[in-house]
Amino acid sequence: MCPVCSDMASYTVAPLSRLVDEFESLPGIGHKSAQRLAYHVIGLSKEKAEELASSILDAHEKIHYCRICCNLTDQELCPICRNEERDKSVICVVEDPRDVMALERTHEFHAVYHVLHGAISPLSGVGPDQLCIKELLARLSNNEVKEVIMATNPTVEGEATAMYISRLLKPMGIKVTRLAYGIPVGGDLEYADEVTLSRAIEGRNEI
Amino acid sequence: MCPVCSDMASYTVAPLSRLVDEFESLPGIGHKSAQRLAYHVIGLSKEKAEELASSILDAHEKIHYCRICCNLTDQELCPICRNEERDKSVICVVEDPRDVMALERTHEFHAVYHVLHGAISPLSGVGPDQLCIKELLARLSNNEVKEVIMATNPTVEGEATAMYISRLLKPMGIKVTRLAYGIPVGGDLEYADEVTLSRAIEGRNEI
Repeated sequence: MCPVCSDMASYTVAPLSRLVDEFESLPGIGHKSAQRLAYHVIGLSKEKAEELASSILDAHEKIHYCRICCNLTDQELCPICRNEERDKSVICVVEDPRDVMALERTHEFHAVYHVLHGAISPLSGVGPDQLCIKELLARLSNNEVKEVIMATNPTVEGEATAMYISRLLKPMGIKVTRLAYGIPVGGDLEYADEVTLSRAIEGRNEI
Repeated sequence: MCPVCSDMASYTVAPLSRLVDEFESLPGIGHKSAQRLAYHVIGLSKEKAEELASSILDAHEKIHYCRICCNLTDQELCPICRNEERDKSVICVVEDPRDVMALERTHEFHAVYHVLHGAISPLSGVGPDQLCIKELLARLSNNEVKEVIMATNPTVEGEATAMYISRLLKPMGIKVTRLAYGIPVGGDLEYADEVTLSRAIEGRNEI
């Protein structure tokens, strides 16, 4: 409950304030937005409100990890792992299912993914065991995979995770690569930070 | 579905994209936020997801209009109409239940409210019949009400609604007042618009 409104408790309606609290617990939704959403939901038709509620239950119930790549799916395998035309010898390792979506939008990558569902972060209590790393190792045991591309985020946690996994894979004789660092296309050199710029210089290519 | 991602349809998971669409249909939630919310919901525990869904159904089912003032409540009368200490001879007419909350936060108003649930807006097809105006007139029939304060929003629609209602009430011999216009407290004269400033001059008080 918002500190401003806390003294309003006697005038609030229990199911309404419960709904506001529920919305407020979602990421990126503050008290004002939660109130607006709650009033909107109350104003919906019965069918629409039931659809919203059932879509939450339905998604939560039916969606689970793909048996191979740990991406989200409502079937045994995700659409990418099911696709026979995908090159199964290259695996791109990402932190999050949304990263798969982002890479798919490039239309440049025709191999398969592996979703870790997070990055190693000792400060948040996330160790290698909480990530889908053993599932990745299981995929590599049949010697079909030639290259693993580490596409974790360019953050301290993402770097640490990429390093950790690459050290696990090196002894197996698998080529491990990392996404290129550099200036973003359409960006402005003036506003690029020093670390990005120095990485762009290091990684320069002949034209 | 976002135009950028529409070609991703083959890689999306049906219950997930249905949930994203549902969230996206809520006010103030764009495609990216809807995605974030959907992934958050999938990551919730079963109990938490069920709580969220049931709070939506619960609020939608139990909350209805107060029999007297049309504010939202889960009982026959809202807490303000139930309160014996409230002065029932003055009614403050507002557009929205959130306006009641805003006025209650001032702790200055000890009478009762009437919620219209909108304002007259011919452009949006909202006429007087869609608002809770007849419920207001019904409250005035027993001669107990001495004053009606029009606290609709200071917009064209709010003004029109205030004018419409005041013309209905004048012949009944009820005093109809309007919230004062002026410069907001803590505001800066330099940034006040001309209309507000001229209303502030018109409505000046002796000190």
